[in-house]
Amino acid sequence: MHVIEEGVVNMFLEKVKTPGLAHLSWVIGDGDSAVVIDPRRDIDVYLDIARSQGAQITHAIETHRNEDLISGSALLAEETGATVLHGPNADADIRYATTVRENDHITLGNVDLKVLETPGHTYDSISIAIYDRNKGDDAVGVFTGDTLFIGDVGRTDFYPDRAEEVAGALFDSLNKVLALGDQAIVYPAHGAGAVCGSGMADREFSSLGHERMNNAMLQIRDREAFIQAKLDEQHYQPPYFRVMEKLNAEGGRQAPKPLALKPLTVKALSEKQKDGCEIIDVRSPETYAGAHVHDSISLPVGLIAAYAGWLLDTNQRLVLVANSLEQAREALVNFSRIGYDSIEGAYTDGMTGWSAAGQPFSTLPLVSVDDVSRRLREKQDHWQLLDVRKAEEYQQQAIENSTHLYLGHLQEQMHRLDRGTSYTVLCGSGMRAMVAASVLRRAGMHDVEVFLGSMGAWNNR
Amino acid sequence: MHVIEEGVVNMFLEKVKTPGLAHLSWVIGDGDSAVVIDPRRDIDVYLDIARSQGAQITHAIETHRNEDLISGSALLAEETGATVLHGPNADADIRYATTVRENDHITLGNVDLKVLETPGHTYDSISIAIYDRNKGDDAVGVFTGDTLFIGDVGRTDFYPDRAEEVAGALFDSLNKVLALGDQAIVYPAHGAGAVCGSGMADREFSSLGHERMNNAMLQIRDREAFIQAKLDEQHYQPPYFRVMEKLNAEGGRQAPKPLALKPLTVKALSEKQKDGCEIIDVRSPETYAGAHVHDSISLPVGLIAAYAGWLLDTNQRLVLVANSLEQAREALVNFSRIGYDSIEGAYTDGMTGWSAAGQPFSTLPLVSVDDVSRRLREKQDHWQLLDVRKAEEYQQQAIENSTHLYLGHLQEQMHRLDRGTSYTVLCGSGMRAMVAASVLRRAGMHDVEVFLGSMGAWNNR
Amino acid sequence: MHVIEEGVVNMFLEKVKTPGLAHLSWVIGDGDSAVVIDPRRDIDVYLDIARSQGAQITHAIETHRNEDLISGSALLAEETGATVLHGPNADADIRYATTVRENDHITLGNVDLKVLETPGHTYDSISIAIYDRNKGDDAVGVFTGDTLFIGDVGRTDFYPDRAEEVAGALFDSLNKVLALGDQAIVYPAHGAGAVCGSGMADREFSSLGHERMNNAMLQIRDREAFIQAKLDEQHYQPPYFRVMEKLNAEGGRQAPKPLALKPLTVKALSEKQKDGCEIIDVRSPETYAGAHVHDSISLPVGLIAAYAGWLLDTNQRLVLVANSLEQAREALVNFSRIGYDSIEGAYTDGMTGWSAAGQPFSTLPLVSVDDVSRRLREKQDHWQLLDVRKAEEYQQQAIENSTHLYLGHLQEQMHRLDRGTSYTVLCGSGMRAMVAASVLRRAGMHDVEVFLGSMGAWNNR
Amino acid sequence: MHVIEEGVVNMFLEKVKTPGLAHLSWVIGDGDSAVVIDPRRDIDVYLDIARSQGAQITHAIETHRNEDLISGSALLAEETGATVLHGPNADADIRYATTVRENDHITLGNVDLKVLETPGHTYDSISIAIYDRNKGDDAVGVFTGDTLFIGDVGRTDFYPDRAEEVAGALFDSLNKVLALGDQAIVYPAHGAGAVCGSGMADREFSSLGHERMNNAMLQIRDREAFIQAKLDEQHYQPPYFRVMEKLNAEGGRQAPKPLALKPLTVKALSEKQKDGCEIIDVRSPETYAGAHVHDSISLPVGLIAAYAGWLLDTNQRLVLVANSLEQAREALVNFSRIGYDSIEGAYTDGMTGWSAAGQPFSTLPLVSVDDVSRRLREKQDHWQLLDVRKAEEYQQQAIENSTHLYLGHLQEQMHRLDRGTSYTVLCGSGMRAMVAASVLRRAGMHDVEVFLGSMGAWNNR
Repeated sequence: MHVIEEGVVNMFLEKVKTPGLAHLSWVIGDGDSAVVIDPRRDIDVYLDIARSQGAQITHAIETHRNEDLISGSALLAEETGATVLHGPNADADIRYATTVRENDHITLGNVDLKVLETPGHTYDSISIAIYDRNKGDDAVGVFTGDTLFIGDVGRTDFYPDRAEEVAGALFDSLNKVLALGDQAIVYPAHGAGAVCGSGMADREFSSLGHERMNNAMLQIRDREAFIQAKLDEQHYQPPYFRVMEKLNAEGGRQAPKPLALKPLTVKALSEKQKDGCEIIDVRSPETYAGAHVHDSISLPVGLIAAYAGWLLDTNQRLVLVANSLEQAREALVNFSRIGYDSIEGAYTDGMTGWSAAGQPFSTLPLVSVDDVSRRLREKQDHWQLLDVRKAEEYQQQAIENSTHLYLGHLQEQMHRLDRGTSYTVLCGSGMRAMVAASVLRRAGMHDVEVFLGSMGAWNNR
Repeated sequence: MHVIEEGVVNMFLEKVKTPGLAHLSWVIGDGDSAVVIDPRRDIDVYLDIARSQGAQITHAIETHRNEDLISGSALLAEETGATVLHGPNADADIRYATTVRENDHITLGNVDLKVLETPGHTYDSISIAIYDRNKGDDAVGVFTGDTLFIGDVGRTDFYPDRAEEVAGALFDSLNKVLALGDQAIVYPAHGAGAVCGSGMADREFSSLGHERMNNAMLQIRDREAFIQAKLDEQHYQPPYFRVMEKLNAEGGRQAPKPLALKPLTVKALSEKQKDGCEIIDVRSPETYAGAHVHDSISLPVGLIAAYAGWLLDTNQRLVLVANSLEQAREALVNFSRIGYDSIEGAYTDGMTGWSAAGQPFSTLPLVSVDDVSRRLREKQDHWQLLDVRKAEEYQQQAIENSTHLYLGHLQEQMHRLDRGTSYTVLCGSGMRAMVAASVLRRAGMHDVEVFLGSMGAWNNR
Repeated sequence: MHVIEEGVVNMFLEKVKTPGLAHLSWVIGDGDSAVVIDPRRDIDVYLDIARSQGAQITHAIETHRNEDLISGSALLAEETGATVLHGPNADADIRYATTVRENDHITLGNVDLKVLETPGHTYDSISIAIYDRNKGDDAVGVFTGDTLFIGDVGRTDFYPDRAEEVAGALFDSLNKVLALGDQAIVYPAHGAGAVCGSGMADREFSSLGHERMNNAMLQIRDREAFIQAKLDEQHYQPPYFRVMEKLNAEGGRQAPKPLALKPLTVKALSEKQKDGCEIIDVRSPETYAGAHVHDSISLPVGLIAAYAGWLLDTNQRLVLVANSLEQAREALVNFSRIGYDSIEGAYTDGMTGWSAAGQPFSTLPLVSVDDVSRRLREKQDHWQLLDVRKAEEYQQQAIENSTHLYLGHLQEQMHRLDRGTSYTVLCGSGMRAMVAASVLRRAGMHDVEVFLGSMGAWNNR
Repeated sequence: MHVIEEGVVNMFLEKVKTPGLAHLSWVIGDGDSAVVIDPRRDIDVYLDIARSQGAQITHAIETHRNEDLISGSALLAEETGATVLHGPNADADIRYATTVRENDHITLGNVDLKVLETPGHTYDSISIAIYDRNKGDDAVGVFTGDTLFIGDVGRTDFYPDRAEEVAGALFDSLNKVLALGDQAIVYPAHGAGAVCGSGMADREFSSLGHERMNNAMLQIRDREAFIQAKLDEQHYQPPYFRVMEKLNAEGGRQAPKPLALKPLTVKALSEKQKDGCEIIDVRSPETYAGAHVHDSISLPVGLIAAYAGWLLDTNQRLVLVANSLEQAREALVNFSRIGYDSIEGAYTDGMTGWSAAGQPFSTLPLVSVDDVSRRLREKQDHWQLLDVRKAEEYQQQAIENSTHLYLGHLQEQMHRLDRGTSYTVLCGSGMRAMVAASVLRRAGMHDVEVFLGSMGAWNNR
């Protein structure tokens, strides 16, 4: 029962964060209506929030065409009858959504939402200002999508042949947003850790005033200088971005409901592998190191959203190895958010059961900071430290004589590695290094090991 | 595993809302440390937030002496080793806490928390400004305790003999807070519906800028006018406030761990009642109306926090009647938050089981808006509409010829009612009216019924 | 991880009970294989048991054509690849199942299951003897389906024109089962409370030896006497039995997955009712009595399985009124088990919210044993006690001058009631009476009330 | 609401199994009363069963003095007011319990429980026959404690100086139990895998008839031959048995409520270790193999109940390393059941976090069946296969040239191993071998590795 007798609080604004992608979506509502901003594909969380507030979801708003995850807007529309809204100038003819334009309004009880057209990150980008109709004419907050982040602004590298134009558009859009006033709280579509902006704060709360005074990009007051700064930026574009854009233009592939996960016995796992399924081991790096199914890929749950799109084709048939069915289900949801729906089961009974049933297993050596230090000191031959972090991380600090090859580029540029060399792979802590090592092994490079602790251990040695 | 390889987001700020009391507490942290602002007594929620972020709680901060609920600070300190901080000038010698003063700092990773002394609501009130050490010198936000709410300011009626002094102090404190700048986000200790402020917004997010421009009390720029406005306010003080203050000065009575709830059979409930326990029926008003244990009090779960303190002595032995053990447990937690620890069990098997076992039951008539309209039209004799809402609600709108007596004052002022008159009790929807009707019945007034729908139905007739 | 190092226990036998229908299904397994006996439609429970034992479900066995619930065999087959087995002589051509015959075996590790053809209750009835291949040649237990219950034997009234033949067949079948030996434990398809047998024990564990010595029907050693006893029995056949038989012959209508339940606002509920949906109130009788939506039917969750089939057409569009979404979901599952799939949502915000929104409500009077006693004593005119229990309950004990009309027959025989008479409805405790009263009200009889406590209160007066 | 209108089933009998110890306890009840047979220390499961049946627990029965786990009887008595019953002739003066004797009765509704004195396993052993007062005079079942198991009988090695006497007493007791008749179902206190009997069936359901005909020990019809067979048996007695007996005589040390588990950061774990806490790693063997905290002991959750009592002192301060807090909590409960209450926290953030923070880690090599086969073939020098299974497992099948030393005896007999030899440890699958290897490492033997898959892999090679 959500009816409360004393001074009912109807207005609500809740953040839904999707880990791995650092994606932020928002539910705002008043009275018996609610709106979801930039919903993800697994939409139960929005339905639960709305229901707990006694509200029905009436609209889903896309602040821009999403390229890094599958939108849940079309699904929300189907489940709740909500209207999907998006900005003008979309690349595709998006049949499931209605176009909104500058100054269009949505009113929910005392909440008033107003559209600002803010192209730049994409042509169809919009921001949504929030007003409380009972309390003055100043915006209380603004959903900024991928236009303005806490500590950064949106990337503008998606239209390479019109790079200056879109960077300039973003400059103008930011000024339009800032004009809402210092008091407006900022609600962006991404937090730190996202692949969509690189200088973000570690913080997920700020106001236009704080950003105006402290966001480095907003300190550049000259339009040309701003454009040049954007042109100088470098961003990664995982290949699955193109798939996401296409799916989102079509309405987002609907998730299989429910996300069923078949438990696999030893025998069933073995048969799936023979039958062409890729085995994805979502357990911790040290568990994979200890023993794993031969030719399986290490991809810990927390890295699925960021790296599956670099390493796996969306149509590849997959089976999971996990600690437990709960962990496997979490992995399934992470895969689903970025469009991987071909997961045919999960084996969760561990490598003792696997090996006791007569199945072969592999191990992968872990080395410590002491081992690495010694080898560097001794200048070991035919041995190389391979750093798979992002270029900007490597540029910030690297171990002398290490080689850099970004994990996301590993499959494409593996030819740069030497099969006669022994590689010790490192990253920030050893997680991405284990993913990389498993991919190298899968490609037939057997003299591979992982530096557990990696830069963390190096800096704490 | 909270270790995430990509751009770890460590800084976090989470709201914990306690329904019924509209109490807001906050957890802020960075890296492996966290601070809780104004914790309530059931502290598991704070431990869970900290753990999910990989942080240990190092401090609990009391922005002021709480009068409306039991503080969880002493319990948090015991469970986690956290240091409890409070402001100077406390009424009592609070042995479990350390006094902080203007400009004292707590640093958690990149978060810097700075103390502002902001007396007014209480002498010991403080506010806590939030800075991001990586991003400029402007406060990102401020925990304002009961000094500044969204749409209102703190009440200043707790020191009747020094009323002008404390109202003036609040004026000065608000100016000190506003000086942090328009960009700072406001994080108060109460949301709308609280007994601590009456003009609050229906909204729980705002910034100093938005409040400066729109909060009615902040528009009064003259100190004397502000003081006069505060003196003119009227507030309720439930008798349990004094108990809370005393317990909080002592460190908060510790909650029995775990909050065990004995299920009662029909026989056991009957014996508890004979043995002097008060029976509290936490089911919905219509369920109580249909059938209830004779002499039980109706107090739906959502009203416990607001009304138990008016109706029940904190030492009264209680037993619950609930729909389910889950509902009974929710009631138990609500009672516990305001210091009622003598709950001896719960009966959850319904009135069919009760009556089939040979036990007597009572019913309480519900009447509709049509019934009430007709009686008013016919000017029925010896009949009275009794409105038990707050005075300010009654002043805003009331049904002609109805009598007002606030539910909180019902027991004390029951002598104002006439035993020869038949009363139909109303409130906003019928919930508080049912509580009132059960209290009147318990006191021996039998000709009582409830207007289901109450003002809601009246306005929709 | 289910691998346990020490003396792995692989053999398992678990009971799954479906309340309301008193239906018992069983999962037996050893090693990595399991068999489900008489699965219900919501099959997750079987999948969970199998997975927790590390087993795959290889077979589903139907001991007979189910008439009182929808079988989950076809669904299990689809989800797991299991083979469905049933006995010979089925009425229909059941395409999804394989026929087994006398002495057919299924071997699961050390468990050996052997088919016994045991016609009588239905032509296709089989029993399944359980052997432990490591421990002797005697059956450890036997799944008896609807052939033998604890304290009773199966009903034989489904083929009225061949009544003697099937009763005789049952006699022979029981002797075949008893020949397995006193040591065999009995695992039937129904426990006490089922509509399929009337003399059952209150107990769900027994052995062939205990039944041979104590089951009243097994004391009749003469075949003709046994046949006569069966011919003398009287059983109810709810109209939905025919629907179940038909659906089960076709493979069981598949359940919508997941069983989604739309929460309804006041407005949505009101529109659904206008749009022709029947409102089913699954809250407790006293809650319904207190206030309910006009023209809604009372059907507490625990009575759905037993009475929906008498009162509602399987294609009728339904909406629920419940205390909580959890209660509504439980109701949904109960409806689903007997083929009611047209549930379009649930309203769970109570009658205060409903009436405060301006919607009309109804109440239904509850009377106590004292009221009833007084009226009987005073021989009140134009008033009648209406007992809606089963005929056998009424025959066992009834209140003098009460009228009997079984709840299941109420709609069909309502013409037997007098619209000029005031009825007080009773049953065992008041639950079925409330269902009956709501049905009478729905049919336009307004002078109806319920005796809360009913026979329970009468016997404890 | 457990009140069901139709043919209420009140009689219930539920099994509660404690994995690891293969301990079986039982709840039997009728109407509003229930009895628990041989409760374990974490008693919530019994309270939940009783409540779901609407019953209060009136008695706890100890079929004998428990030596392998802490009894929950005294705790149940405190929580529910239940009376604790035990047999005559107890070694200790058990103040919290009441002595029952031959033919004493407890009646619960229609259930009648009758005491049989059945000394042998212990002097105070009793069995409890179950009767249904409505259905004849034959026992429906019997709780046999540690007197009779499915496939075996109780061990009689606890009184070495009176071995013949107690073995003879058991013979007589078994005959007394069998006299209840073939039809009685057997409900013992242990299932397969227990340390209390060695020839048990893989099955947990049987009747006296099936046991009479198939239990090997019951085929010995000569008293002297039976005594001799018992004298010839060999059993392990972990040192903690003496602690359990003492605690149970005193009433069972009460469990700390709730079982709180402090999450530990890297820093906190490191400090706990320096401070003298033993680190117990409850993760899977392959995870421990991959990377673990130096000097930690491997003890996977499923082995805690069986091996903690051999390896750890009950007063040893412990901290856990686990995959997740859920796994750590499961470990905590397992430790608690056998009296280990000094668990000071759990680290669940994995070895990447640990090593990235600059902490050292260790690894432990896993070898495959191919590695082992090759070494055996090549007769590798200074290398030994060490089998740590139970003597009876080793006697049944062993790899040629392997050495046997039971895991439980490892610490006591480590002097039998040669520090100049390299050991590959094996067991059934690798789990116990990993525990043994970690204990050897902890004792300073570094040239140790584990045969993953062990006898399972050997037999499937």
